[in-house]
Amino acid sequence: MDFRAILEEIYTEAKALPAIGTVASTIPELAKINPDKFGMHLTTIDGQDFGIGDSEEKFSIQSVSKALTVAYAFSILGEKVWERVGVEPSGNPFNSLVQLEYEKGIPRNPFINAGALVIADILITHLKNPKQELLNFIRTLSGFETINFNEEVAKSEKDTGFRNAALCNFLKSFGNIHNDVDEVLDFYFHQCSLEMTCKELAHSFFFFANEGKTRNGNQILSQSQVKRLNALMQTCGFYDESGEFTYRVGLPGKSGIGGGIGALFPKNFAVATWSPRLNEKGNSELGMYALEQLTTKTGMSIF
Amino acid sequence: MDFRAILEEIYTEAKALPAIGTVASTIPELAKINPDKFGMHLTTIDGQDFGIGDSEEKFSIQSVSKALTVAYAFSILGEKVWERVGVEPSGNPFNSLVQLEYEKGIPRNPFINAGALVIADILITHLKNPKQELLNFIRTLSGFETINFNEEVAKSEKDTGFRNAALCNFLKSFGNIHNDVDEVLDFYFHQCSLEMTCKELAHSFFFFANEGKTRNGNQILSQSQVKRLNALMQTCGFYDESGEFTYRVGLPGKSGIGGGIGALFPKNFAVATWSPRLNEKGNSELGMYALEQLTTKTGMSIF
Amino acid sequence: MDFRAILEEIYTEAKALPAIGTVASTIPELAKINPDKFGMHLTTIDGQDFGIGDSEEKFSIQSVSKALTVAYAFSILGEKVWERVGVEPSGNPFNSLVQLEYEKGIPRNPFINAGALVIADILITHLKNPKQELLNFIRTLSGFETINFNEEVAKSEKDTGFRNAALCNFLKSFGNIHNDVDEVLDFYFHQCSLEMTCKELAHSFFFFANEGKTRNGNQILSQSQVKRLNALMQTCGFYDESGEFTYRVGLPGKSGIGGGIGALFPKNFAVATWSPRLNEKGNSELGMYALEQLTTKTGMSIF
Amino acid sequence: MDFRAILEEIYTEAKALPAIGTVASTIPELAKINPDKFGMHLTTIDGQDFGIGDSEEKFSIQSVSKALTVAYAFSILGEKVWERVGVEPSGNPFNSLVQLEYEKGIPRNPFINAGALVIADILITHLKNPKQELLNFIRTLSGFETINFNEEVAKSEKDTGFRNAALCNFLKSFGNIHNDVDEVLDFYFHQCSLEMTCKELAHSFFFFANEGKTRNGNQILSQSQVKRLNALMQTCGFYDESGEFTYRVGLPGKSGIGGGIGALFPKNFAVATWSPRLNEKGNSELGMYALEQLTTKTGMSIF
Repeated sequence: MDFRAILEEIYTEAKALPAIGTVASTIPELAKINPDKFGMHLTTIDGQDFGIGDSEEKFSIQSVSKALTVAYAFSILGEKVWERVGVEPSGNPFNSLVQLEYEKGIPRNPFINAGALVIADILITHLKNPKQELLNFIRTLSGFETINFNEEVAKSEKDTGFRNAALCNFLKSFGNIHNDVDEVLDFYFHQCSLEMTCKELAHSFFFFANEGKTRNGNQILSQSQVKRLNALMQTCGFYDESGEFTYRVGLPGKSGIGGGIGALFPKNFAVATWSPRLNEKGNSELGMYALEQLTTKTGMSIF
Repeated sequence: MDFRAILEEIYTEAKALPAIGTVASTIPELAKINPDKFGMHLTTIDGQDFGIGDSEEKFSIQSVSKALTVAYAFSILGEKVWERVGVEPSGNPFNSLVQLEYEKGIPRNPFINAGALVIADILITHLKNPKQELLNFIRTLSGFETINFNEEVAKSEKDTGFRNAALCNFLKSFGNIHNDVDEVLDFYFHQCSLEMTCKELAHSFFFFANEGKTRNGNQILSQSQVKRLNALMQTCGFYDESGEFTYRVGLPGKSGIGGGIGALFPKNFAVATWSPRLNEKGNSELGMYALEQLTTKTGMSIF
Repeated sequence: MDFRAILEEIYTEAKALPAIGTVASTIPELAKINPDKFGMHLTTIDGQDFGIGDSEEKFSIQSVSKALTVAYAFSILGEKVWERVGVEPSGNPFNSLVQLEYEKGIPRNPFINAGALVIADILITHLKNPKQELLNFIRTLSGFETINFNEEVAKSEKDTGFRNAALCNFLKSFGNIHNDVDEVLDFYFHQCSLEMTCKELAHSFFFFANEGKTRNGNQILSQSQVKRLNALMQTCGFYDESGEFTYRVGLPGKSGIGGGIGALFPKNFAVATWSPRLNEKGNSELGMYALEQLTTKTGMSIF
Repeated sequence: MDFRAILEEIYTEAKALPAIGTVASTIPELAKINPDKFGMHLTTIDGQDFGIGDSEEKFSIQSVSKALTVAYAFSILGEKVWERVGVEPSGNPFNSLVQLEYEKGIPRNPFINAGALVIADILITHLKNPKQELLNFIRTLSGFETINFNEEVAKSEKDTGFRNAALCNFLKSFGNIHNDVDEVLDFYFHQCSLEMTCKELAHSFFFFANEGKTRNGNQILSQSQVKRLNALMQTCGFYDESGEFTYRVGLPGKSGIGGGIGALFPKNFAVATWSPRLNEKGNSELGMYALEQLTTKTGMSIF
């Protein structure tokens, strides 16, 4: 299939649309971004690899990182991960404390903030130098040695992250955080501050599409494990809009409030989009549009 | 692929497992069933078609019918259906009223009871003879003219269905039921009382796997519409265990408290299982096991 | 104390206020009322008894009746009443189903709709001719033989009472309604349709102020029982505005969406107000104002 | 009335009861207490003043302090206090985050933890040396210059206070905490660590009973303001058991998990009890019993 032509078609159509949505305002450092940026990169199992628009510009991947940290924790602990976090859609906003209270501190899934904090806690427990080892892991996934945290963004998140501090303390009160609250938050704010280009993100997601193996041939997870994380992204990757994304796009993926989305078609391709304007659920308006067009125009959907 | 050998293997293994779970007790008529029944039927796009165990015995399909009624409503109204019911996982038990109150009477999806009642109301509005036309629709889907309601089961549900009566009145108080409450409940209790064999159920689900076309060549929905309903079953088909089912099995499907499950692999096969013992979430314990084994042994999963 | 002068002062002040609030619109029959009606009647233990404004005009007492039915049930069953309904403020709107779901069908208190339905069910179980005997009870309380139901209002409530039908079915699903749902609703809609003047209502509430004894000397409840119901009205009588009413007025009382309020100062007086304009919590705006002025001007408050 | 004889009677009866309930275990420092301690002190407007049992032994007043800090904030800000905290019963446990999420960070009342944290924040904003000035205020209320914090208890609360840290960060995320989270928590943990004897506590509550004036004649609040705080204690002082306490005892009061209760009969007396065994709602079992007996034996209740 000529993906390049399709991407160009989507790009042209997308740029012609009226601008909808607003840039995330909760984190001051992110609010500075140019809202009209738009990039897309696709990389296929059979070797096609190209981007369009602002696809080589760095952006803050934010919650897209949750897909990568859960993969890291899963590679270390296997199924034991699910003793401390569930695999069910939450049906609530990403930062809700309500469900957590009713369910005694076990987050519904690793893609809501509470779940990602538990995953961060797991990684801290099992890594000697957690932040550096996370960087190494992601550099291995992507093949890009220059991927790094943005310390200004991490600090900005810390200065305004009272809701996350509330979640982390709440989890700790249920015994589901084992390390120091401040250390867990520091790790979490750093993972969210990771910066990538669409190309780097698509390459990082490649192993999800390629039965667990990166573009450089590193086997990160088994075929069966990757299948399970893909399933999890399908049901839970887009906060309380996961159903809508599945309904419209039909691909496993993960979004972030920086405007990025990583998605994939198992055994076929990985794709990343970036457009900072968010809809009211906190997902990239143009990114969702572009991915919907991708599955519509190619007829490639898992359903 | 030699599906027959795989089914026989699964059947043998499943029968050797210790019996787990209990038969649904909320509906007296259903509680009489032999808990050790177990059947399975698989039908492929390329023409394979066979069952094993109690696959030709009738059982009450209950909530599996919700997948068929939403298909019927979707074939009549198209995307307008989603003005009155959502496409998001609920994160709550199938009969919860809580979310409905917070969300002003718009059920999260058509597979929780509230959503199915709205679908029933839509069908009643658009059909002249709703129950008969539903039967006709399902007979067309499946190719079996003998499929029918079980009036004893329908009556038993009515006699004990106070929670559903509460839901239907609650929806009506929000204006999201347009017909008479008793008429909607009567239709709903009848659809739940539909009886099928595993073979009939697998054949009924065939069009979901076959891009909208039944085994007899009737185009029920477009390829794009079927893709969307499959996506919806994936995220919402198993109540608040949808994530678990997706994680373990990775196929779109719908379960019922009669112990039946209909599932499918798009463009490949439809499958039905029946075993009345339910886990605590109300899904068939052995049915979920059998489907997990099917995707594991065949390596066929959408993820 | 010269209550007459104080009432006249309050009346003059109240009539000079700008009209705030709107007449209840949920029950068509009630929506027809003249919103500017305002009456007040006070009756003291030491024999003072007079009204002002529209105090001798009939209005629909609606939920004020809940104070009377719980007194009736309490007189029959004593403390056993609390096995099926609680004595705690609900912190939720009067017709919420949420709490009921979490608390397995035991309503928080007898003044929210769910609790009043359980009280209705209790009365139906213990009375041979429930509606007639309720009328007799209330005629005895008040000394007025002409108090009656308004059948048009009762019918109007039935035609639009889907939320109450939802609650009653929901309670039945938890086993906390023993009689037929339709019979319970019919009784409940009738009790709500009771019509009284301010004078009749104040006389009906007299026994709460007079240690259980009516103006005619009938001992309805013991001193200790009346004390407990007064306490209950204090914490729960004004829906999710009970705290506000207690804070501002400091008297036990019960309001209704017909715009009526019955209240009392233990061992001193009973008072009734009527003004159909309601605030957003469903309580009479002018009634609350008048009672706040009454305690402020007299310095008589239980706190 | 001969209160001394009544107190002795209650004390004898109470000591003869089987021990029910358990000492609070959430704060390690509190868990060390002798569970069988029991003291009571009563002080009347007309000058009676005496205690019984362990009434002169210091205990940790914990949440009883919330009645005193809200009085302090009310004396500074007046009605403006209610712009940041409500006056309604919450209907939820004292440390629930659920309601706070639905109600956008405005705690239902100042007696749940969230509300007390907001009151602490208000005091920090308006006081130069908050902890010392709080001590001064309470020494003035009680007339005892030796009342002090227990630093070990304060530290113990800090070390285990993740739920309170969650609440405070959560409030801050809604903008309803103006000062530094750690400073607010430090103040709050100190106020909870205040130690008093029953005598000191009863004297501290005296001004609530005495129209705002302490035993030493200091006018702390106006008559009208005290009436309002008494009303608030009545509806909200005992967590989600406030209705029960009002029903059984019928006096405004405030409990703490150290086993203390302060209560009062307006214009008559203030009373304090201490018994560390708590019921499942976190209120002192024997304290509630003793106060119920006090109103029963004296016939003195506001209702």
